[in-house]
Amino acid sequence: MLIHEDRLFPADPATRVIARRLHATARDLPIVSPHGHTDPAWFAGNEPFADPASLFVVPDHYVFRMLMSQGLRLEELGVPTLDGAVHETDGRAIWRRFAAHYHLFRGTPTRLWLDHAFATLFDLDRRLSAETADFYYDRIAERLALPAYRPRALFERFGIEVLATTENPLDDLAQHRAIRDSGWTGRVVTTYRPDPVVDPEFECFADNLRRFGEVTGADVGSYGGYLEAHRRRRAYFKSFGATATDHGHPTAQTADLPRSEAEALYRRVRDGQAAPAEAELFRAQMLTEMAAMSLEDGLVQQLHCGSRRNHNKALHACFGRDKGADIPAPTDYVHGLKPLLDRFGNERTLTIVLFTLDESSYSRELAPLAGHYPCLRLGPAWWFFDSPDGMQRYREAVSETAGIYNTAGFNDDTRAFPSIPGRHDVARRADCAYLAGLVARHRLDEDEAQEVAQDLAYRLAKQTYRL
Amino acid sequence: MLIHEDRLFPADPATRVIARRLHATARDLPIVSPHGHTDPAWFAGNEPFADPASLFVVPDHYVFRMLMSQGLRLEELGVPTLDGAVHETDGRAIWRRFAAHYHLFRGTPTRLWLDHAFATLFDLDRRLSAETADFYYDRIAERLALPAYRPRALFERFGIEVLATTENPLDDLAQHRAIRDSGWTGRVVTTYRPDPVVDPEFECFADNLRRFGEVTGADVGSYGGYLEAHRRRRAYFKSFGATATDHGHPTAQTADLPRSEAEALYRRVRDGQAAPAEAELFRAQMLTEMAAMSLEDGLVQQLHCGSRRNHNKALHACFGRDKGADIPAPTDYVHGLKPLLDRFGNERTLTIVLFTLDESSYSRELAPLAGHYPCLRLGPAWWFFDSPDGMQRYREAVSETAGIYNTAGFNDDTRAFPSIPGRHDVARRADCAYLAGLVARHRLDEDEAQEVAQDLAYRLAKQTYRL
Amino acid sequence: MLIHEDRLFPADPATRVIARRLHATARDLPIVSPHGHTDPAWFAGNEPFADPASLFVVPDHYVFRMLMSQGLRLEELGVPTLDGAVHETDGRAIWRRFAAHYHLFRGTPTRLWLDHAFATLFDLDRRLSAETADFYYDRIAERLALPAYRPRALFERFGIEVLATTENPLDDLAQHRAIRDSGWTGRVVTTYRPDPVVDPEFECFADNLRRFGEVTGADVGSYGGYLEAHRRRRAYFKSFGATATDHGHPTAQTADLPRSEAEALYRRVRDGQAAPAEAELFRAQMLTEMAAMSLEDGLVQQLHCGSRRNHNKALHACFGRDKGADIPAPTDYVHGLKPLLDRFGNERTLTIVLFTLDESSYSRELAPLAGHYPCLRLGPAWWFFDSPDGMQRYREAVSETAGIYNTAGFNDDTRAFPSIPGRHDVARRADCAYLAGLVARHRLDEDEAQEVAQDLAYRLAKQTYRL
Repeated sequence: MLIHEDRLFPADPATRVIARRLHATARDLPIVSPHGHTDPAWFAGNEPFADPASLFVVPDHYVFRMLMSQGLRLEELGVPTLDGAVHETDGRAIWRRFAAHYHLFRGTPTRLWLDHAFATLFDLDRRLSAETADFYYDRIAERLALPAYRPRALFERFGIEVLATTENPLDDLAQHRAIRDSGWTGRVVTTYRPDPVVDPEFECFADNLRRFGEVTGADVGSYGGYLEAHRRRRAYFKSFGATATDHGHPTAQTADLPRSEAEALYRRVRDGQAAPAEAELFRAQMLTEMAAMSLEDGLVQQLHCGSRRNHNKALHACFGRDKGADIPAPTDYVHGLKPLLDRFGNERTLTIVLFTLDESSYSRELAPLAGHYPCLRLGPAWWFFDSPDGMQRYREAVSETAGIYNTAGFNDDTRAFPSIPGRHDVARRADCAYLAGLVARHRLDEDEAQEVAQDLAYRLAKQTYRL
Repeated sequence: MLIHEDRLFPADPATRVIARRLHATARDLPIVSPHGHTDPAWFAGNEPFADPASLFVVPDHYVFRMLMSQGLRLEELGVPTLDGAVHETDGRAIWRRFAAHYHLFRGTPTRLWLDHAFATLFDLDRRLSAETADFYYDRIAERLALPAYRPRALFERFGIEVLATTENPLDDLAQHRAIRDSGWTGRVVTTYRPDPVVDPEFECFADNLRRFGEVTGADVGSYGGYLEAHRRRRAYFKSFGATATDHGHPTAQTADLPRSEAEALYRRVRDGQAAPAEAELFRAQMLTEMAAMSLEDGLVQQLHCGSRRNHNKALHACFGRDKGADIPAPTDYVHGLKPLLDRFGNERTLTIVLFTLDESSYSRELAPLAGHYPCLRLGPAWWFFDSPDGMQRYREAVSETAGIYNTAGFNDDTRAFPSIPGRHDVARRADCAYLAGLVARHRLDEDEAQEVAQDLAYRLAKQTYRL
Repeated sequence: MLIHEDRLFPADPATRVIARRLHATARDLPIVSPHGHTDPAWFAGNEPFADPASLFVVPDHYVFRMLMSQGLRLEELGVPTLDGAVHETDGRAIWRRFAAHYHLFRGTPTRLWLDHAFATLFDLDRRLSAETADFYYDRIAERLALPAYRPRALFERFGIEVLATTENPLDDLAQHRAIRDSGWTGRVVTTYRPDPVVDPEFECFADNLRRFGEVTGADVGSYGGYLEAHRRRRAYFKSFGATATDHGHPTAQTADLPRSEAEALYRRVRDGQAAPAEAELFRAQMLTEMAAMSLEDGLVQQLHCGSRRNHNKALHACFGRDKGADIPAPTDYVHGLKPLLDRFGNERTLTIVLFTLDESSYSRELAPLAGHYPCLRLGPAWWFFDSPDGMQRYREAVSETAGIYNTAGFNDDTRAFPSIPGRHDVARRADCAYLAGLVARHRLDEDEAQEVAQDLAYRLAKQTYRL
């Protein structure tokens, strides 16, 4: 049996019984997925997924970073190089390599998500290993060919009420248009992620900026026109269901420059003359500008910060972005956010959701900030912390100061579509485990904990993201 | 039932039984409260508390910061603005707003403290909510009018052996004098908190300095005279029972300047010409000067550092200090304290009690420092960490390196008088829970744990603070 | 009874039973001790240990730092001053002082290690205290005189398969030569720790450098000759069994300078003209040079960084290094290691083992780095964290991101020979406690956990250190 019905619940029998009862009331609530990176083309085209390896291994940086850390080469795992050099294309060969190293995932959330998918989607009940690799491969391949395993059918089977994808402003949202025009009733919305036209250090920034002017019809030669381009594109994204923006910045720095300074800074950015400190200042300024627009158009602002992207120089040169080489760094929210908060911190109609990869900021900065400023909410434990122990530490570090209701519920933030139910399963169980601990130690009554369990599983995400 | 007799004890039955036994030996020890912010006027005048809202809501920044974070305005909660603009004055209306949002406190220590007071002082046994708001209000108001609910009666009922308040050097200690002259036997002592005449960035610093000269008769025009003023005022505070000083600094920076440099720095500070870095240097220098005076007069030196005060600009302009907008920042003890420790670190008759709002420093800096330098003790988990999980993390992060006996016992640090028994109750239970875990895992014998439980609840605070 | 058979196992009965079963499979595996600071002279000469105090108190900075923090003087504990001033030389007097303060170690790992040695080596079963001090002293002294308590006999009794000591490049390894020449079959190897000739701020650096040239016959006047000296000395250490180097640096900073810049920097270092920032840069450069040599000669590179050495100025002046006054500081791995990783991060035949004293880096930096770069492994919880709670936090913070197999197994890192079995006992129990928790919450199957328990106790250390 790959997954146990009491998985992730506390070992103490009395606490476990409470966790079970709480979970029973939250388990079957619809999935609200307000932030993630699935591909809308899946739902537009509704084509079958190609094969087990390209579904589970090749696109999942959690998986291939671990395999790489133990000596496998990305080429062997089917990850394509930028220059088109030879890489493994035989799905079964990739799968066998993965299976032979499955023990590396012991104790990781990846193991939990994978086993959940293997058990619930593919009715597998023996552990993946070198011995069972082919059996797995055949079973999964066979199922993927069935109509019930096409993207839309899985979406419905997963009980997804709404799923947000993430696109950049240069995307024409053709896939979202196709979904809308298809008559399919699944609710898939977009999210406005403007990093490629906001971060002067982004690949091809100058070209991105030029195209940003083209797709919006705004004159991005001036700061005013550039801001207008954002306003127009946000409205366009809203017309495809967007309720939020998302910003992936290396730090939490914000700025609130006088207009003339912001204009001068933009000119340097536009002309490709921004030094690193100016690029940082421009990103900082744009977070505040985006908050100003959110106050106008109601989009929730998400801030995912603190990741040093593309830390592995050779890997980045060979394979490009998002290959498991993003490493967190210390992040300062208390000074970084101050310029933005000085301007908008007390706004009651603005929602800014903060994420971190620096756990030391949970109790020191994020909970005190969110437990005070009306505009702030804390996103769930993110990325490396989207895990049972990571969630437990998050709840313990955050709740006593910020309470439950300044947190934003769960989001799965995934590129791996079949992992969505498993990720929500882990979150619901981990939250019930935490709450059961509070009940068992008489810190919360069980009727309250039951309400909270449902809030964390469903209501808080809907409310926070205005879905 | 609002509070359970096994609250905060571990869920595991065998460990819980140990916790109960340990707690039974510590539960009824007198309360020693060596650091806090209650108002000595309560004990001087012994007037009844006005009404439930002004006792539990209006003065408690833990309470109104949470309500504000979820969209309530401080004016609605009766917090007065600096300019005297209209704010809610109807205690019942404030109470109803508070009650309707009581669910926000789920999982917080505030909830534990409040329920403890509601249950033990007011015999309430149904949860506070919109429905029970008026019932609560009437019951509490009715009781507050009784003689048994006046400050001195409550002081005695709470079993307080000694309570320290905190005053600044410009305070004439008239209230303490009145308590002393009243013949009442309750022991209420003051604490010397010189921030308003030490921090060049404090509101009205120049005026404070002038008055400091007046009240001490020392010539604060010179550095030598300024230090003499402190010496005199410390002696005055000692004559009202003070055994400690307290210093609220943004960082842990200390300095030990040559006399001529310190004098030159003081001249700039005195003349209002100190740049921010000079203000920081002056505060740093004064921590070392205060340690030198402690070595002379025996006052224990407390250092509460790492809070960025008044982070919310608009709120500070409108409502002033201490309105729940103080946010912690990373704090460096290992470099910051070095100048002071180079001079006094090995003194065996000096006691410096360190506090932090940066949990990452517990195991990295504070425990290694306190486990080495004879003059250092660690204060209990402070402010946002004065909570069950906060205390558990504190004990686990600190004890293995610093041991138990380099910690200073509990102090409640509160402005909320009725919360004092509840806060000590949480601390005693949390400490017994921690110790029971050690016993259950055979790391400590139960007879030892029993002694430690009493040390943490009572003896260590008395010894550390020389009370 | 000083030590309980279930010590350190989880309190929950079902989880405890799992921990017991896991531990039964790991408990009796041989000890692999790939990093530590025992004295090879013990095994070369095989003389009896002198007396209880000089075995347990005088050389153990864990012990005397705690006693000092509570007011004892190092002189009273027999620690000699640099100037030869009078200090206590009566072992029994030292022992009595130690025994009278044994309660200070409640809750510390030192207590666990000591009790383990007292119980298993000396058959003591009453707690150490002022009352039992003499009984202890006599029993231990009596036993130390027996042949079975000589170093080699204890080595064999402890079940040590291999033990690494740590020597600097100026050491002629005469003791290791004597061990080898003695015909004794115990495997004691050395480790290359070049700090005294790498750190320009090390005591007597200029003289060290001169002697380094002498012992290697290389011309350390030039950078090329200096690097050649390292190559030769590494080969010499390898001939005495070394499989690793070790580097104790204040930070994790690395550098990869162009050759001409490195040469110019070396000239300033060699001439004693390096400013602090240049000294830091030279240490940084040398970490990368050492990695380059490891790639050539296969020595595993250990990096122990983040300790501010000799924080207590007066103590250092009086007693010298390694007297319990080293205090950790925040450590930045993500930026610090980048130059080295840019050059060697993807090497599959290189192994770099990282250690930290800054727990906030576990989940934020170290686990993400080790879960990605093939050359990196994480050393076990180090120094102040070599303790049950420290290990639990390490496993919980690291495993979900880096997995189990990017960690390096246990090493005891001790100067206290009789504590070796106790330290490994704590580690094996703590790891089994962690694993039992995973099994009890159905995150890992028990057969897998059993394999992991043995990996952590034995195999991972052997593999990582190539022993």
